[in-house]
Amino acid sequence: MNELRQGLTHLIEESEFEALLARGTSLRVKAGFDPTAPDLHLGHAVLLNKLRQFQDAGHTVVLIVGDATAAIGDPTGRNQLRPPLTKEQIEENAATYTTQAFKILDRSKTVVRNNSTWFDEFKFSDVVRMMSKFTLSQINTRDDFRKRAAECTPVYMHELLYPMMQAYDSFREGVDIELGGSDQFYNLMMGRMYMDERGEKPQIIATVPLLVGLDGVKKMSKSLGNHIALTDAPFEMFSKVMSISDETMVNWREILFPRKESWHPQAMTAKKDLAWRIVFWLHDEAKADAAEKEWMRIFSRKENPSDIEMVQVDLGYRLDKLIHKVGLASSVSEAGRLIKAGAVEVNGCKALDFTISDKELTVRVGRKWMKISALN
Amino acid sequence: MNELRQGLTHLIEESEFEALLARGTSLRVKAGFDPTAPDLHLGHAVLLNKLRQFQDAGHTVVLIVGDATAAIGDPTGRNQLRPPLTKEQIEENAATYTTQAFKILDRSKTVVRNNSTWFDEFKFSDVVRMMSKFTLSQINTRDDFRKRAAECTPVYMHELLYPMMQAYDSFREGVDIELGGSDQFYNLMMGRMYMDERGEKPQIIATVPLLVGLDGVKKMSKSLGNHIALTDAPFEMFSKVMSISDETMVNWREILFPRKESWHPQAMTAKKDLAWRIVFWLHDEAKADAAEKEWMRIFSRKENPSDIEMVQVDLGYRLDKLIHKVGLASSVSEAGRLIKAGAVEVNGCKALDFTISDKELTVRVGRKWMKISALN
Repeated sequence: MNELRQGLTHLIEESEFEALLARGTSLRVKAGFDPTAPDLHLGHAVLLNKLRQFQDAGHTVVLIVGDATAAIGDPTGRNQLRPPLTKEQIEENAATYTTQAFKILDRSKTVVRNNSTWFDEFKFSDVVRMMSKFTLSQINTRDDFRKRAAECTPVYMHELLYPMMQAYDSFREGVDIELGGSDQFYNLMMGRMYMDERGEKPQIIATVPLLVGLDGVKKMSKSLGNHIALTDAPFEMFSKVMSISDETMVNWREILFPRKESWHPQAMTAKKDLAWRIVFWLHDEAKADAAEKEWMRIFSRKENPSDIEMVQVDLGYRLDKLIHKVGLASSVSEAGRLIKAGAVEVNGCKALDFTISDKELTVRVGRKWMKISALN
Repeated sequence: MNELRQGLTHLIEESEFEALLARGTSLRVKAGFDPTAPDLHLGHAVLLNKLRQFQDAGHTVVLIVGDATAAIGDPTGRNQLRPPLTKEQIEENAATYTTQAFKILDRSKTVVRNNSTWFDEFKFSDVVRMMSKFTLSQINTRDDFRKRAAECTPVYMHELLYPMMQAYDSFREGVDIELGGSDQFYNLMMGRMYMDERGEKPQIIATVPLLVGLDGVKKMSKSLGNHIALTDAPFEMFSKVMSISDETMVNWREILFPRKESWHPQAMTAKKDLAWRIVFWLHDEAKADAAEKEWMRIFSRKENPSDIEMVQVDLGYRLDKLIHKVGLASSVSEAGRLIKAGAVEVNGCKALDFTISDKELTVRVGRKWMKISALN
């Protein structure tokens, strides 16, 4: 099977795709992103990886910076309206985004286009003409809109523009194929349909699977905080991978390394292997080795010890300050770094922020445990 | 009861309306129309009459020429997409429309605004901002859209802009009250809601009843051909009124002359009175008298005579030519005029066009009957 076909969730239509590849010419492969958040994460890397495969096969990636669409926000999977961003936020996010994307993409085979270039030129009549190619029932059949209607969460009319704009981008750039996450299926199909309506060869659409977040339940997303950022430091990245469940590990390695067929049968060893590969991929070998070594130093003893030191302190501290105060970290900032890396457990659960609400805490940092109770 | 309140189908809210009138200042009373068809008819006259009442009470009419909206077409009551008009057609229709409207409106108390003035200046971001004030459920609850969905007739996305644009017009012109036909209730309410969303005093909305057409069933409309145009000649107008059913007559006189309480108990006499009043209103007294006189001359004998002359002719004629050929009219154009005025019956039914499909016809023109059969 062709490598480009591998690991795709949707491919519409397969026969068209094969015919296009058989032509042997360089294709225009589109992917769009919204500069709504500055940091790319491991979930984006799945898509970027696939795009890179296309580049390595000689094709061109058309990267659409949705600076016009970002002002609206993609309603996909949303259960409420996304707050609009300012022009400055959008520009800043877009710059960070492309810099990060080129950690994976081949810059020499990438064309970057801001869709504000054409949408800023739109007059009212252009909007009318664009909208006239879509029907209300195409919109109403959308799952996410129906869900919101059922939950009495309003869908605002301008949100309906989003998929139409994304479709227009494809037409405007004359792309051969558009790639996205599997939740983008609907938006991608609109592009395919729109190009057909405008008398152009309809784009092929292909989606890649969505990566679940560190929690193993929800889609990885910066706004949920369950993500590994492409800019995370090696140790942080390594620790976060080590914190995922065995089930999530299986999901991740299938999506991230579909070509590697055999993994170590022991979960802990396999997970370390996965963590190493991710750090190696997004940083380099030396950093992957160093991250693993540091993680081993801190976390190699896993059992809950029976003899836990107990201290009484004033609990009016944030968790990072508290950890430093009781001697579990050498400084407040070191404590903060450990919490961020998922290396701190409070009452058996990973600490997610700096807030403390209990009167008695069992805190674990690496191999060190401590029972803390309130003074008063 | 206040005369301005009389004959309205909806008034939202009555208390606001009364408070506004009690202020004693001149109000801005909006009515919009689409220059989609050049001729105004008796149905429009109901609304224009009400607007004139407001003018006579010292208020200003803001007449919105929907030259931007006309490019879309009001989806109200439509069961299919309206074909878009060219800029030239729209301009021509608008000019004819206002000329005709001033047969009833007081020009010195009317402000005319083309909504292209603002919509032509709209950028994409302005459309987004406008749309963001409306929700999909407000649109989905519309009867006409639901009906179309049920009939599998697509609603195109750009049609959804229509009520939003109409609402924006009200905001833009800062109107106090908007008037329309009762089928405009939904669009008018959108304007009220939009002004509220934008932090303005929401417009009051008031609707006038719809006049049924000559057929007594459907709303009067030029495109259905069941209308009396404001530009119809006196005799044509008189004859058309005389052709309506007694039931339609009651409907018309209640809507057109709500203040006249007693009518002649005999239907034919009352109908002649109504016809005379309409011609008097839209032309003048002398023309109303003349039209009645001519109608009486042609139509005073109503019974179907027992001795009908029979002729055999080649039926390869249009109805107007045939009528002239058999001597029922002095010329082809006279015959055409009579058909247009509803004065010709074929096989007991009013002739609506010039086509003939039967092999045997009984034709009545005024008091003259004739049986015609094909030669071959």
